[in-house]
Amino acid sequence: MTSPPSPNEQRNHRVIGVIGGMGPEATVDLMRRVIAKTPARDDQDHVHLLVESNPKIPSRVAHLIAGTGRDPTSELVRIARNLETAGADALAMPCNTAHVYARSIREAVNIPLLDMVQLTVAKLAKLNVARVGLLASSAVHQVHLYRDALAANGMESVVPKQQAQVMELIVAVKRGDIGAAAQARLGSLTADFAGEVDLQLIACSELSVIAAGVSAPFLDSLEVLADEIVAFARALPTAAMR
Amino acid sequence: MTSPPSPNEQRNHRVIGVIGGMGPEATVDLMRRVIAKTPARDDQDHVHLLVESNPKIPSRVAHLIAGTGRDPTSELVRIARNLETAGADALAMPCNTAHVYARSIREAVNIPLLDMVQLTVAKLAKLNVARVGLLASSAVHQVHLYRDALAANGMESVVPKQQAQVMELIVAVKRGDIGAAAQARLGSLTADFAGEVDLQLIACSELSVIAAGVSAPFLDSLEVLADEIVAFARALPTAAMR
Repeated sequence: MTSPPSPNEQRNHRVIGVIGGMGPEATVDLMRRVIAKTPARDDQDHVHLLVESNPKIPSRVAHLIAGTGRDPTSELVRIARNLETAGADALAMPCNTAHVYARSIREAVNIPLLDMVQLTVAKLAKLNVARVGLLASSAVHQVHLYRDALAANGMESVVPKQQAQVMELIVAVKRGDIGAAAQARLGSLTADFAGEVDLQLIACSELSVIAAGVSAPFLDSLEVLADEIVAFARALPTAAMR
Repeated sequence: MTSPPSPNEQRNHRVIGVIGGMGPEATVDLMRRVIAKTPARDDQDHVHLLVESNPKIPSRVAHLIAGTGRDPTSELVRIARNLETAGADALAMPCNTAHVYARSIREAVNIPLLDMVQLTVAKLAKLNVARVGLLASSAVHQVHLYRDALAANGMESVVPKQQAQVMELIVAVKRGDIGAAAQARLGSLTADFAGEVDLQLIACSELSVIAAGVSAPFLDSLEVLADEIVAFARALPTAAMR
C-alpha cells in the first residue's frame, strides 16, 4: 500500500529515514542541523527526510543497565523496515545508545545505516588524538560501545568522574530541561576532564542538545551524523571517501 | 508490508502523522512546540510522530499564483496515505498555504486532518475580535483561504500594505534566514497594522519560525496546531470540545 515518491520529486537527492524519538529533542536537533548544513535557496533544495519520532520505543538504558526493561530490538526493526518501505535510501538513528542494536537493524533492511558510532570513531581517528573524554549514557559505558571501537583505533577513552551526574543531566534533557542552566551544568561537569583528555566526545544526543555549554574542545557525534546525512542525500563524498 | 506499532507501544497516546517539509524549518518548529507543550518526565511521555519532511513537494505558491508550477495534490495525497498506512491516527500539516488542498487529503484517507485553518479560525472566533491582520503568503490572500473563513465568522481580514515584503521574508526563512534580523524585519512589517487591526494572525508557518520579532498581540496558527496535536494525541479535550 505504501508508495515511494516518484523520481522527479527528488531533484537527485536521496531520502534519509530517521529512527527517532530517542529522545524527541535530539531528533529535532538533528533535523535542525541537517537544515542548517544544506545550501538552500528554497524548500526544494532541502533534504527529504522520513522521520519516525517514536518516544515509546522501550528504554535502551532500562534494557541494558537495569536488565528489567523490554528489549527495544523488535520496535527498532519495525521502524527501520517501515522507513525502507516508505522510500528511504539510507537510515540514521540520532541516539548513540541505540547503536547497541545496530546489527539487528542492518540485518533487517537492504539499505545502509549511517552508523553514528562508526562515523564518529572514523572522524576521531583522523584527528590524531590519544585520550578521549567520553560524554555518554551509563549504558554506553557499560557495554563498551565507544570504548572498544576507540581502542581498536589506538585511542583511550576516559569516563567522567561524575558519571552519575552526567546521567542525571541526560534524563533532565529528556524531561525538557534544555536551557542555559542545563548547558552550564554540562560545562561544569566536563571541566573535570581538563588536562586528562585531548578532546571531549559528545556521545549522547541529549547532551548534543545542550552542547553550547561546553567550552573545552569537543567533537559532537550528532554533528558528525548530520554532516553524513547531508553528504549522502546530496550524493557528495561521504565520510568513508573523505 | 508496513506494520503499525503494537498497541502496548502507545501508552494510550495516539500517533500523529505530519505532512511536512513546507518548509522544513516550519516542520521542525512544530515538532519543537509539540515537545515543549507535552508534560514529560522521560521519553515515553512524549507524543509519537510520523513525519514526512518532504521539501520536494511542488511549490504551492508557484501552482496557485504563477499558475506554472506542478499541482502538489498527488504528492500530498501520497504522503497522507503513507502516514495512515504507517499507523497515524490523525494528520497535521504545518503549512497554511497547503490547506488549499485539504479537501483532497481528507477524501483520500480515513483518519482526520487536524486542519490548521479551521482550528485557527475557531480559536479567533472565541477571542471576540473584529479586524484581523493577516500575515500570510500571497497565495493564501489570493485564494481567500482565511478571508472567507473569517468573514463567515463575522471577522474582517486586513492584508499588510507591504505584502511583497512579507512574501520576501517568507522566502528568506525557507532559505535559512531565521535569526534576529529576520525577526526584527517581521516586527517592523507588522508595525504597519498599528491601530488598524484588533489582533494579528500569523498564518504562514515560516513566519511562525520568526514570530519572536512581533511585539503587537498576535495569534500564531502553528501554535494552535501544536496545541491540538498534543490534545488529540493525549486524548484530551480538543479544540472542538473546548
